[in-house]
Parts: sequence; C-alpha cells; structure tokens
Amino acid sequence: MNLFIGIDLGGTNIKSGLVDMDAGKIICSKSVPTLAREGHEAVIDRMAGLVHDTITANGLSKQEIGGVGVGLPGLLDLEKGSVVFLPNLPGHWPNVPLRDELTKRTGLPTAMLNDVRAITLGEWRFGAGQGSENMVCFAIGTGVGGGLVINNRLHLGIGGQAGELGHMTIDQNGPTCGCGNHGCLEVYASGPAIAAMGMKAVVQGRTSIIGKLVDWDMNKITPEVVSKAAAQGDAVALEIYETAGSALGVAAANVMVTVTPRKIVVGGGVAAAGELLLAPMRRSLKERVTVVNLETVEIVLASLGSNAGVMGLATHASQMVNEK
Amino acid sequence: MNLFIGIDLGGTNIKSGLVDMDAGKIICSKSVPTLAREGHEAVIDRMAGLVHDTITANGLSKQEIGGVGVGLPGLLDLEKGSVVFLPNLPGHWPNVPLRDELTKRTGLPTAMLNDVRAITLGEWRFGAGQGSENMVCFAIGTGVGGGLVINNRLHLGIGGQAGELGHMTIDQNGPTCGCGNHGCLEVYASGPAIAAMGMKAVVQGRTSIIGKLVDWDMNKITPEVVSKAAAQGDAVALEIYETAGSALGVAAANVMVTVTPRKIVVGGGVAAAGELLLAPMRRSLKERVTVVNLETVEIVLASLGSNAGVMGLATHASQMVNEK
Repeated sequence: MNLFIGIDLGGTNIKSGLVDMDAGKIICSKSVPTLAREGHEAVIDRMAGLVHDTITANGLSKQEIGGVGVGLPGLLDLEKGSVVFLPNLPGHWPNVPLRDELTKRTGLPTAMLNDVRAITLGEWRFGAGQGSENMVCFAIGTGVGGGLVINNRLHLGIGGQAGELGHMTIDQNGPTCGCGNHGCLEVYASGPAIAAMGMKAVVQGRTSIIGKLVDWDMNKITPEVVSKAAAQGDAVALEIYETAGSALGVAAANVMVTVTPRKIVVGGGVAAAGELLLAPMRRSLKERVTVVNLETVEIVLASLGSNAGVMGLATHASQMVNEK
Repeated sequence: MNLFIGIDLGGTNIKSGLVDMDAGKIICSKSVPTLAREGHEAVIDRMAGLVHDTITANGLSKQEIGGVGVGLPGLLDLEKGSVVFLPNLPGHWPNVPLRDELTKRTGLPTAMLNDVRAITLGEWRFGAGQGSENMVCFAIGTGVGGGLVINNRLHLGIGGQAGELGHMTIDQNGPTCGCGNHGCLEVYASGPAIAAMGMKAVVQGRTSIIGKLVDWDMNKITPEVVSKAAAQGDAVALEIYETAGSALGVAAANVMVTVTPRKIVVGGGVAAAGELLLAPMRRSLKERVTVVNLETVEIVLASLGSNAGVMGLATHASQMVNEK
C-alpha cells in the first residue's frame, strides 16, 4: 500500500493531497473553504468529503488507500484522537473526537498531528531534511512553530507538543508574548514581529523606503514589504531582518546544545526572505555555540513549500499503519 | 552477563564501580588519585589498573565481566573512541585513542561517554528517572551539565554533546559566559555563580548572615554556605537561590517546549540545596510554559548521588554489548 491522503485543516482552507509514498509525490491536490463558523460537525463533514472526492476523482477505491493523516493548527490529545484547543478556529472544538469521527465517515484508518509537526515530518521524509538522523524544523509565519526528528523518528512528546520552538525564552526579561511568557522567540522573529518593527521604524520617522513602498499605509507593511526594502539595500529593513535572524540563531543555538541536530530546516512564509534571515541566523548560531562541533551542521531552507504539511500527514498515516 | 564496570575519570580522582545490572547495585567501589600531571599514559594505566583490581578483589575472572564504561569530563569523539578536549585535565589529551588503549590493556569491550551524560543514564536506569520514556537531567556543580533520554534511549547527538544545558542562552543580552556566549544558564545557576552572588552581597554590605558564617573570609563562601544562610531565613541568601532556581526554570521551560520530557531530574553538588533551588525552578517553569500541558510533568532531585556516574557508565557498556 503506497497511497495515503493528507488533510490539512487551516483557518481559511482545508487542503488535501493524495500522496504516492514510493514516488514521494502528490498525485492530486484539492482545497475547500474551512467555513469554521458553521461548526465543527460541518467542518468534519467537509474533511471527509475531501477524502471521498480525492479517491473518486482519481478513479480509485477506498481499498487502495492506506490511510489518512489529518493536520490541525493547535493542541491535540493524540491518545484520545481529540482536539484540546485550536486557537484560530471558531466553533466549539475542545474534546471533539476528530480522529474517530473521520474514521467513521471515511472508513479509513486516521492519524492526527499538529500542522507544524506535519511540516517537519514532510521536510524530513521528502524535502530539505532528507537523510538527517536528527533534524529540527522552524516554521515561521504568523507564529513560530517547529518540530524535531530524533533518531529518525518524529519526536512527539507530551500531546505531540514537542517542538513549540516559538515559545522558547531567549531573553528572560524580554517583552511579553501572546502566550503569557516573556522574551519568547516569537516576539522577535514571527511575521507580525517583523511587520511591527517595520511599522515602528516608519512611525518614528527613520530614513527608510518601507513607508514609500506601501504608500504610507501602515497596515500594508508585511514581512514581504520589509524584505523588498532590504533587497534594495534599505538599512532599516536590513536591521529588522538582522534582529529576527539573530533571534532565530539564539533559538537554534539552544536547540543545538540540547539535541545537537545535524540539520536545521527553516520554512514558513517568512522564510521566503531566504539569506536575509538565514545569514544572521547562521552567524548568531556560530557565535553562541562553542561546546558542540558545528562543522557538519547545516541551516537550510525548507524545500517543499506549501506541500510539506500534506506530505508529512501522509507520511504520519503511513508510519501509523506500517507500525501496527 | 550482568556484571559491568564503570570508570569515572575526574580531575582529582578516578572512581570505579562493579555494577550488578540485574540487582541495580554497585557491588564494589574503588578510587585512586588521577594525578593527571603525570601524563595521559600514566592515567590510562591507572584506569586499567582499577579495572584489574576490581576484578581480582571480587574473586572474579575477566570472562565474568561484560564490559567497561568510561566517563570523561569533556568533549569526545565517540566514533573514533578518542578525546577531543578535557578542559580541566592537564596533560596532552587531544586525539588520545582512549577507548582502544583501554581495551588493549584490559582485554574487555569498552564504551566511552561524557561524565554528565553518564549521570543522566544512571539516574534514568536506576535512579530518579526510572520509567520515564523522555527525561532530561540537569547536573549543577562547578559548571552546569545535562543529558537527555528520548524514547527510552540516551540521546547522544553530535559527539555525544546533546544535553550541554549549561550553555543554553536564557538572556541573549546577558553577561559573558566562560564559553564565550552571553547569558548562558551557567552564568546564573552554577556553584561558582551562587558563591559569587553571595560574595557580592557581602562586599556590598547588604544585611545578611553570609559574611558572619564564613568569619568574613570571602573565599569560604560556597553554595553550601549560602544555602545554610537561606535555611536560617536570610533574605539575601533566599534571593540568590531564587535567582539561580528561576534561571534553571527558564532552561527547564526551554527544554519543555523543545522535547517535552515528563521528568526533569536535578543533580550535582548544588542540588543539595533541595527545595531552595527546586521551588523557584518549578514556579518559573509553570509561569513560562502555557503551550504544553504540565499536569504530568515532574521536577525531582536525583537519587543516586555520586554513584550515578559509575552506574550510568556500566549501563552504557551493557547497552553497547547487548546491541552488538
């Protein structure tokens, strides 16, 4: 059995992918709006519908699918197969036995996973992390998430929460984070943090082209705009990415002294800035870590883009089925 | 085969232990001075001599010993079985093929390990960490070391350096550490850091009994003295342990969001302060981590004392032999 389906539940869309595990390819992708306000029952129906549509659209029968991996943006109870907390999805999700509900509707074995852990697993199996016995992934977008592969296995830990790297403290006296802690990585290196630094610079009247790039409409300042300014040599924009990249380097250094991965994969929308972010991250890692030999350590960009999640979810489902 | 020998090389003494792995007990302990200034050949001879003496003193033959685990205080090349760097041992150690040299002298299979990773493994197998699938150990003495057990295995990582928790950055703008980095845990929570805070308070003339406890001889201020003062309700001493314990809590929080262990074991000489250190550590962990369910997480004191290293080394040797 080499065909598995990944279903990635996001705040806006539900994405599905039929993955050929031998070829390492997505054969067919689909997407439908989440419409979470209609309630969790309707969303689960739509997820099950996507599974059904994916199978029939490819002229397959249910018996030809090994299983389904479902990714969710939040805190899960992996043992019960239920949701604990989905911060960005309206509708009453706590304690919804999502895994069993989906199995009931699709008749297929179903495995659940946090969405960023799915990206980690996808990049490890088919992307930039291939061949790394130990690998850590940072996914930088609206928040900063992450995941760990240790000894060639996705490390889940309590409730699959291992790898919440955005909430690593890098300055114990730093600014307050949305999570309640102080000085979390996310305060310095998330998309909103980068945009906020751009806004602040413009509001303070610093010499920068950022303001002009958005026609002085502060709400249009995004990490992409700041990165565009940096590409044109804008000193303020470069400084902003230096701050974010250095913070990521501190977190990478902490990951390095803790689990010493050979590869650190950086993905998520903000990673589109590429070397702008990775160069200060590498420098900061190197400056801070002297107790581990970094010669064979690499920080690389994720390579699967928005396919990583679905491919990781299919991988998770295939591992579950094969280990049974 | 259930008898293994652990040999722990320290700056002052070489300690050995004959461990019955089934009973989880040290049958016989020995110790000789390290005398590292005599050079590494002489030290290796003494280590081999200890193995020999341990066997004969117990009326055993070499064939009844499964293997030897050797612990070293520094950076090792586990693949080559050689030393990279032993910061506190005089004599030319780099590139010494210690593992093979010992095997040559003793005729027994030999495994090497960093000394703090050995403590971690010992506490996991026979001590406070028993039964934890995922466990992290902090060993607090002259420096702060550590180790990780993940998925019921000691996690080694690059060169066995995984678990160098003393060099985790908890304040990216903090004071310089001996390793060259800024704001490492070790700057706030090692034995010398605690003693230095005590000295500073006395020198600054703060109201405290610490000075009186050492007859105003600053060189006699140790973590133990500060802990004695704290036990008598001394506010300055309590504040010092609060600072050290809180810093440990930040590091524990970072470990928690990264690998989410169920158990954190705290050992080393400074841990003798017990709740004085653990209470602020627990509080700080709880305040900082909201993204992982901490209900089942425990921070506990190590239970094997100075036996942990030798027992961990015997465990390491037995695992190597059994996995061959």
